[in-house]
Amino acid sequence: MSVDARHGLNRHVTLPGSLVLDGGGSLTPVEIAYETYGTLSPERDNAILVCHALTGDQHLASVHPRTGKPGWWARMVGPGKPIDTDRFCVVCPNVLGSCMGTSGPASIDPATGRPYGMAFPVITVRDMVRAQAMLLDHLGIGALAAVVGGSMGGMQALSWAATFPDRVRAALVIASTARHTAQNIAFHEVGRQAIMADPRWQGGDYGDAPPAAGLAVARMAAHITYLSEAGLTEKFGRRLQARDAQEDPKLSFGFDADFQVESYLRHQGLSFVDRFDANSYLYITRAMDYFDLAEEHGGRLADAFRGSATRFCIVSFDTDWLYPTAESRTVVHALNAAGLAVSFVELSSPYGHDAFLLDSPALDRVVGGFLGAA
Amino acid sequence: MSVDARHGLNRHVTLPGSLVLDGGGSLTPVEIAYETYGTLSPERDNAILVCHALTGDQHLASVHPRTGKPGWWARMVGPGKPIDTDRFCVVCPNVLGSCMGTSGPASIDPATGRPYGMAFPVITVRDMVRAQAMLLDHLGIGALAAVVGGSMGGMQALSWAATFPDRVRAALVIASTARHTAQNIAFHEVGRQAIMADPRWQGGDYGDAPPAAGLAVARMAAHITYLSEAGLTEKFGRRLQARDAQEDPKLSFGFDADFQVESYLRHQGLSFVDRFDANSYLYITRAMDYFDLAEEHGGRLADAFRGSATRFCIVSFDTDWLYPTAESRTVVHALNAAGLAVSFVELSSPYGHDAFLLDSPALDRVVGGFLGAA
Repeated sequence: MSVDARHGLNRHVTLPGSLVLDGGGSLTPVEIAYETYGTLSPERDNAILVCHALTGDQHLASVHPRTGKPGWWARMVGPGKPIDTDRFCVVCPNVLGSCMGTSGPASIDPATGRPYGMAFPVITVRDMVRAQAMLLDHLGIGALAAVVGGSMGGMQALSWAATFPDRVRAALVIASTARHTAQNIAFHEVGRQAIMADPRWQGGDYGDAPPAAGLAVARMAAHITYLSEAGLTEKFGRRLQARDAQEDPKLSFGFDADFQVESYLRHQGLSFVDRFDANSYLYITRAMDYFDLAEEHGGRLADAFRGSATRFCIVSFDTDWLYPTAESRTVVHALNAAGLAVSFVELSSPYGHDAFLLDSPALDRVVGGFLGAA
Repeated sequence: MSVDARHGLNRHVTLPGSLVLDGGGSLTPVEIAYETYGTLSPERDNAILVCHALTGDQHLASVHPRTGKPGWWARMVGPGKPIDTDRFCVVCPNVLGSCMGTSGPASIDPATGRPYGMAFPVITVRDMVRAQAMLLDHLGIGALAAVVGGSMGGMQALSWAATFPDRVRAALVIASTARHTAQNIAFHEVGRQAIMADPRWQGGDYGDAPPAAGLAVARMAAHITYLSEAGLTEKFGRRLQARDAQEDPKLSFGFDADFQVESYLRHQGLSFVDRFDANSYLYITRAMDYFDLAEEHGGRLADAFRGSATRFCIVSFDTDWLYPTAESRTVVHALNAAGLAVSFVELSSPYGHDAFLLDSPALDRVVGGFLGAA
């Protein structure tokens, strides 16, 4: 078999043609950074597209170049794993608007020769999906054996099934939703305001001096929504942060991080700014807030899926308060109303929304089982 | 009856003596701004202390001098109202650490002649209560007919009963908790980091140029926790903000406030900075995070109340996810374990934590009934 240079880790492509956007404009060129795992079958019928979440990237099961950490779903994707690369060819692109090589606000605007910044067009989840479809065209992949995603990745999976029903044989949607609620929007708006309030943001033209303080605050606020109250209590409770190995930790009666949960959140904020672009955070949260699949189909979610032959599996976690089970149930009801094959499972986990990224044998069985039936 | 100049609206007193603080230091002088409503009986046995929440103040039922709005509990306090000023003498002090006339970080530090800023000592809820006890001494009030408070006001009511059991005949604790959880601390820490990340904060020495952007972000994040998801959906859903009376509102594909919930949150943030001091926000959130009544009593909450004769009424709201009913139930169990008289009611409301401030006939009946039995 000849080696296909389009496949492998750390790939990057500048796609021909322009991408027409929901907002009315278009984007040219469209660059996509992506990785593939496993081998495309001669029939080209074993491709699985994995869509990442808000701050995820294409390093699905490879070491992240900036953090040195394993890929974000390394436990899920590989030979013999639930997403089995002995059997499937897995494609994972960095989403449009992000900052790991795919076109986004940090990319060079050909009109000016400088980074787009806030001149980058506002995009939607459907625009991300259309860009991914262009990538699949480039890779010579017609229909997907499956599209898989958690959180914003699940939104993309839903949008894929609604936008390109003939290209999606199965869709696996984990810890996700068909629309952002007022509370979801509210939390994102806090994050955006934190970034834009940082004087370093400079209207998006921050160059090499990013609004790190604002971005860290945005990440801290968002991070709370990824964890359950019970999970935070189990992990941290009111335990104090040790400052000195000689003594028991005690309240400082100051503004240092006295509680372990404070220290943890500060670390989450600070480490995030090393790997993520503030403007990308603005654009991607905006795309998520705009997401309302029913609204794109005349207000009836079932109409997004009517006539499709895609098999669905919808998974929620009982302690996820960001995208609670009720949101998944709404999707399941719509799929049933449209007459599609759908299985639905609510998994039990103490870890809230983040559970989809963590070790979960039950999730592994659901994912492996659903894809194994492909 | 002679007029007692210590009573009435817009009172302010510099108390003699110094206040010894939980953090180890002491505060001298202690200034307290307060209001009283109704008349103290000749027996001085009809006083009710109302304790306010994080961003509340002494303007319980009088017009707020900065906003021009009615007092924050005007619907609850007055002649013939549930807290009946025809019968009770109601005292409402601004809490220690706040910014409406009581000693706080904006007060003048006698050691330097300049505002304390971050040189103000870190305080606790119990310190707030001790300062209030000094005020009652000044007013010639021994035992309270009742202490009443919602949210942080409820923490003070619990701390009053635990610290001065002989001075509290009844305690009414609404939408509150006996300790801050990891999630409670996490949200406050986001707010503090937002303030301290604002370059205008200047280590607390901001003078007349306060860190308004950071404080607004802190308020926005906190405000989400005061509302229920269902309440936000009912009030705003995904409805768009009208920009032009001529057309139906539509997505801007930009970063203006497209959704009504964004516009509402921005307004909450901006209007807050006109009436509240950023350093006070740091100190009071810190006091709340430190609050753990069990920990102050050897780890057993029941021991905080053992031997007391105080009657209790504990009220929670079913959609309050900041201090959910489970936290109130923990308090009730401890009171039962200590053998005290306690009634407990969970009220139904769509409005989340903020329900205690809103029109609620059921709450009015509970408050009126409990205090009427005094």
